Amino acid sequence: MPLVVVGSVALDSVETPTQKRDRILGGSAAYFSYAASFFTSVRLAGVVGEDFPPEHVALLKSRNIDTAGLQVVEGGKTFYWKGKYLPNMNDRETLELQLNVLADFQPDLPESYRRCKFLFLANGSPKLQMQVMEQCRGASLVVADTMDFYIKNEPAELRALLKKVDGLVLNDSEAKLLTGIDNLVQAGHAIRALGPRFVVIKKGEHGAMFFSEFETYVLPAFPTEKVVDPTGAGDSFAGGMMGYLAEKNSFDPKTLKEALAYGTLVASFTVEDFSLDRLAQITREDLDQRMEEYKRMLSF
Amino acid sequence: MPLVVVGSVALDSVETPTQKRDRILGGSAAYFSYAASFFTSVRLAGVVGEDFPPEHVALLKSRNIDTAGLQVVEGGKTFYWKGKYLPNMNDRETLELQLNVLADFQPDLPESYRRCKFLFLANGSPKLQMQVMEQCRGASLVVADTMDFYIKNEPAELRALLKKVDGLVLNDSEAKLLTGIDNLVQAGHAIRALGPRFVVIKKGEHGAMFFSEFETYVLPAFPTEKVVDPTGAGDSFAGGMMGYLAEKNSFDPKTLKEALAYGTLVASFTVEDFSLDRLAQITREDLDQRMEEYKRMLSF
Repeated sequence: MPLVVVGSVALDSVETPTQKRDRILGGSAAYFSYAASFFTSVRLAGVVGEDFPPEHVALLKSRNIDTAGLQVVEGGKTFYWKGKYLPNMNDRETLELQLNVLADFQPDLPESYRRCKFLFLANGSPKLQMQVMEQCRGASLVVADTMDFYIKNEPAELRALLKKVDGLVLNDSEAKLLTGIDNLVQAGHAIRALGPRFVVIKKGEHGAMFFSEFETYVLPAFPTEKVVDPTGAGDSFAGGMMGYLAEKNSFDPKTLKEALAYGTLVASFTVEDFSLDRLAQITREDLDQRMEEYKRMLSF
Repeated sequence: MPLVVVGSVALDSVETPTQKRDRILGGSAAYFSYAASFFTSVRLAGVVGEDFPPEHVALLKSRNIDTAGLQVVEGGKTFYWKGKYLPNMNDRETLELQLNVLADFQPDLPESYRRCKFLFLANGSPKLQMQVMEQCRGASLVVADTMDFYIKNEPAELRALLKKVDGLVLNDSEAKLLTGIDNLVQAGHAIRALGPRFVVIKKGEHGAMFFSEFETYVLPAFPTEKVVDPTGAGDSFAGGMMGYLAEKNSFDPKTLKEALAYGTLVASFTVEDFSLDRLAQITREDLDQRMEEYKRMLSF
């Protein structure tokens, strides 16, 4: 089944303790789409400026990602993020942030997008996420991401959104911020009580936790020695997860757990290089091979 | 097979955000022994003062823990630690530390201890750990723990010890401190290069990582909603792990992984109450039942 994602497409400048890249392809929807493209066809909605390099669009299209919903604003500049990772490669500082065309983004999904059954609302204002959801009334699975900025500044809108979505994906510090609870198991259930049928808490190098009415579990991250750039790991995780659910056209408990595992593994490849460079080198077979290793790791 | 542990036996005063306990049973060897006692008979070596309540000794003995090696110093005072957990229940402050009789502890193992095949050197000065090892020359598996204090202050002695032990168990921040490497996968292998055939990095609520020449894996912690007091989790983990290895009289890769899982589960019970209170309520059957849940959680 095709999968729709609405989110940011960005140009990122990333500095790690040992390397530096300028204006490389980034943004939640870019990472998400590429990750999901290993499993299903993806329809991307977002906005870029006139400065957005055509080769990035070509790269996405080469992966069967529909960019009909990617608005290009004439004379506009693409969303830009500049960040620097600390030596631990987990904490980062934002050095510069230019919303540019993203500031006035009004999603208006193409007709083909509106009929999709699987919808992912990447990081964005809850009001805008709600608008997108209203354009996809027939969706059978709607999952959203959110972040500290909206938890702090648009709490009412976020709570309204949470009552409507099927799933929420967020990271550990955001889960604590949203609930005021430090124990992640308690926090996960507390978020579920706000509306979503399931909640996924991403813990970066420590894996991901899943919460539904009947299940609570943790899957560890795949232990990778080569962490070049963690940017986009969370969005790749969500892309792998949603892509797999859309491929299987199911979100029963068994499929959801497999989906979390695939999300984990796509993310483990993403961090092995900058931007989408590592994902561009791998195939579904590489993912399946790492899945075998992962399953072996977790069985005893 | 019987298992020998040499380490601290303490009286702890613990404050959490919601509760407080004074002078309760603690110390690495106490937590370790009790955890291991679900699997095998344990021989504990350590030292306490005259103030050590006899009911604590009775509790250990009731679990088939041999206390012949527990020295009681007449007129001495037991090692005392007072600590306070921050609201996140992971970080803690030491408010008071009195080494007391531990300051002059000279382990002199009873004859029956010296013939043991399984030896655990809980946290202590590497020089003292080495002395103990020399008293158990026939041991077929020697595993040590260490901590920041010795990594910083006795690096040469610690390196000498690492060349002699079969395994090292330490926590994530200690692994980073010992190697100067932030990536835990790289750090684990770097520690292995210092001597031990295997290394276990404990990540608290995020589980544990294992490193040997042929294997690298991570097992997540059991997701528990009820964290009352994390004190002793790491020592219980080591006790469960070593206890299981001694029970099976094996440390092949398969048994080691099962042992890590049991260590994880014993620790998940330990944190559910203060001191050994929760462990005192459970049986091997409870552990095995949680093991079934844990295995279900990790299979998909």
